[in-house]
Amino acid sequence: MKTYKVAVLGATGAVGREMIKVLEERRFPVGELVPLASEKSVGTTVGFCGEDVKVRLACDDAFDGCDIVLGAAPSAVAKRFAPHIVGAGAVFVDNSSAFRMDDGVPLVVPEINPRDVKSHRGIISNPNCSTIIALVAVSAINKLSQIKSMTVSTYQAVSGAGAGGPKELLEQTAALADGRSVSPSVFRYQIAYNLIPQIGDFLPNGYTTEEMKMQNEGRKILHLPDLLVGCTCVRVPVVRSHSISISLKTEREISVDEARAAIAKADGCRLVDDAEN
Amino acid sequence: MKTYKVAVLGATGAVGREMIKVLEERRFPVGELVPLASEKSVGTTVGFCGEDVKVRLACDDAFDGCDIVLGAAPSAVAKRFAPHIVGAGAVFVDNSSAFRMDDGVPLVVPEINPRDVKSHRGIISNPNCSTIIALVAVSAINKLSQIKSMTVSTYQAVSGAGAGGPKELLEQTAALADGRSVSPSVFRYQIAYNLIPQIGDFLPNGYTTEEMKMQNEGRKILHLPDLLVGCTCVRVPVVRSHSISISLKTEREISVDEARAAIAKADGCRLVDDAEN
Repeated sequence: MKTYKVAVLGATGAVGREMIKVLEERRFPVGELVPLASEKSVGTTVGFCGEDVKVRLACDDAFDGCDIVLGAAPSAVAKRFAPHIVGAGAVFVDNSSAFRMDDGVPLVVPEINPRDVKSHRGIISNPNCSTIIALVAVSAINKLSQIKSMTVSTYQAVSGAGAGGPKELLEQTAALADGRSVSPSVFRYQIAYNLIPQIGDFLPNGYTTEEMKMQNEGRKILHLPDLLVGCTCVRVPVVRSHSISISLKTEREISVDEARAAIAKADGCRLVDDAEN
Repeated sequence: MKTYKVAVLGATGAVGREMIKVLEERRFPVGELVPLASEKSVGTTVGFCGEDVKVRLACDDAFDGCDIVLGAAPSAVAKRFAPHIVGAGAVFVDNSSAFRMDDGVPLVVPEINPRDVKSHRGIISNPNCSTIIALVAVSAINKLSQIKSMTVSTYQAVSGAGAGGPKELLEQTAALADGRSVSPSVFRYQIAYNLIPQIGDFLPNGYTTEEMKMQNEGRKILHLPDLLVGCTCVRVPVVRSHSISISLKTEREISVDEARAAIAKADGCRLVDDAEN
């Protein structure tokens, strides 16, 4: 059986650790795992298939011989190493926003546009978390009739801010229970028992960077360059799992039953029956 | 100075206690406060202007001589006592949903349709909490150009479920911190670190009772019988203060600046400047 040498760039972060866990759970044919991180994590190990694998320094020649590099690092790190990854002949599947909107870089959700992957030139981008969640369901409706516009409100868990997010939420909750004061660090405001209606930075058009991802990435993934998206992104005091409320306008009128049936049978979707409630 | 004999029906609940606090804070000219509650609270007291006022039994003749009765009790209790309140010549300002959609009962938000109060025949209804919050801002836009449709997503605090809501959230959070299990009671599911996308009961049209209030009450308050409202109501693990995301369609196109300016100067609204963020 063919196996692959797989590097994970940012192997010690929340996303990198999850990627390594999923590689193991899915029995991905990993011949060699190369966990890469910055100086401060070198010397530590990550668990993989019952072994402790040493974390190596992410440097220009760290990708030699790799088949696949999974990117779980910030955009700046992805940008810095991308030429070296591509130069080493590996395919860079990047989770950051560095290359998502670049021409020639496919932006892929396997349940929606798997064939787009074929056009890659060394880099394949992975969309923003809430964009993926929203579009997996929206895509099912889009197959019934083309989506013209979307109004989206998100309820995003603190895990989206990395490993520090859940830590800060739980610490703040504990502090408040003890009557101690709370000093925000990962988030700009207290997140325990609170909502923060800002994820990313505000842009001149009044939307945040996170909100614009839903429109820009949605257009590219669905191949709908004129799709209109109005999006409000809100951080909520939930540890993990994002939730999203979406209102759609389609080309032709679609009944609720038709929409439910399409979502029920779509890859990656599960319809919760009202009758359960 | 003229004073009023004011009864509070449901004086020992979360809403009733808040009403009494607000009467005091606003120095409402209360000549006599009559806190009314069910059998089990009779004998307890509520604090008002530095005095402990005895809670009396809510019964048919409890309203004699009252000028105003503030209703902070469930719909069934409001329905039971309304004829006796009106019969006693008092004005019943009711917070329950019992009479909101009745012809002849004005449904009033002071910042929006204060003049509707004049048509009352003994009962004045107070809208649903999230409806009030949404419409105070929406009304400002409606004055610029008539609202045709609204898409609403709510982020509703546990206080909306009464005094038991905050108690359950804080108890569940403490239980989870101790590694104990959580058994939902006020809410159907765990609310600590979770979202519950159901408030009220599901109706045959797929919306919940809470979600339909936004449309039905919105139409009555704004005097827009054809207003279309799509609403998703979600309970969030916040102790108090509801939040709402709204997307509007107006008769004529309105600029963001125009909308912001209208909301900024509307009664009961405060615009948070992006520059603060």
